Amino acid sequence: MPKNKTKGSNLERELCLKLISRGYRAVRVAGSGAMKNADCDIIAGNRKKKYCIEAKSSKKLIKYISKEQMNRFISFARIFGLEPLIALRFDRQEWVFVRPNQLKESGKTLSMSLEKAKKVGKKFEEIFK
Amino acid sequence: MPKNKTKGSNLERELCLKLISRGYRAVRVAGSGAMKNADCDIIAGNRKKKYCIEAKSSKKLIKYISKEQMNRFISFARIFGLEPLIALRFDRQEWVFVRPNQLKESGKTLSMSLEKAKKVGKKFEEIFK
Repeated sequence: MPKNKTKGSNLERELCLKLISRGYRAVRVAGSGAMKNADCDIIAGNRKKKYCIEAKSSKKLIKYISKEQMNRFISFARIFGLEPLIALRFDRQEWVFVRPNQLKESGKTLSMSLEKAKKVGKKFEEIFK
Repeated sequence: MPKNKTKGSNLERELCLKLISRGYRAVRVAGSGAMKNADCDIIAGNRKKKYCIEAKSSKKLIKYISKEQMNRFISFARIFGLEPLIALRFDRQEWVFVRPNQLKESGKTLSMSLEKAKKVGKKFEEIFK
């Protein structure tokens, strides 16, 4: 597995365990670290709220996500009645969570800058209470 | 990974692909083949029905499942609003699907015999139309 895929899987695992320690039931989706266009990375929920999470890390100041991937992610969330959340991990930053409709659209690509994520995104503790 | 775990993962993958080819959105849960007491193996659904599936293979004429695992499985299903199904694959048999309450209870263990599974279980095509 390429190094960045391994890193992605480790980040997903870390987030998943963080959710479990917060009292959520959470599972990682198999192959989501390695496969392009997997449906989502993590499914998490408790009796009140249910989420599907796409985890993305970036070494740059802006993260790009293909519109095709987001569409698959959103339709998956709809089918299972899950709230779709994108978990962004910029270098040397904490997780920040944004909704798909907060991404900036340009052609076939969506994006979120670190700057905007800090403004509109939510921290782990704000979402997973 | 032990041989039987690999076999289990392959069977899960096969079932997952079968569901996708039937028009369902289906994902495998990471680590479910290797981890004891994972929440479930497969999550699958379409606009009408949503399932979580625990896949079990058996070389013997009876399959035993720990009550503890079933309890985790059922509570996971409840939280996410999924119908829990156990997918049984006895040697040289097709998949047969049973509900948790169809398992026979004895102490800390639940079981399903091939004989009973053939009577009360449903075939893939009967459930996933």
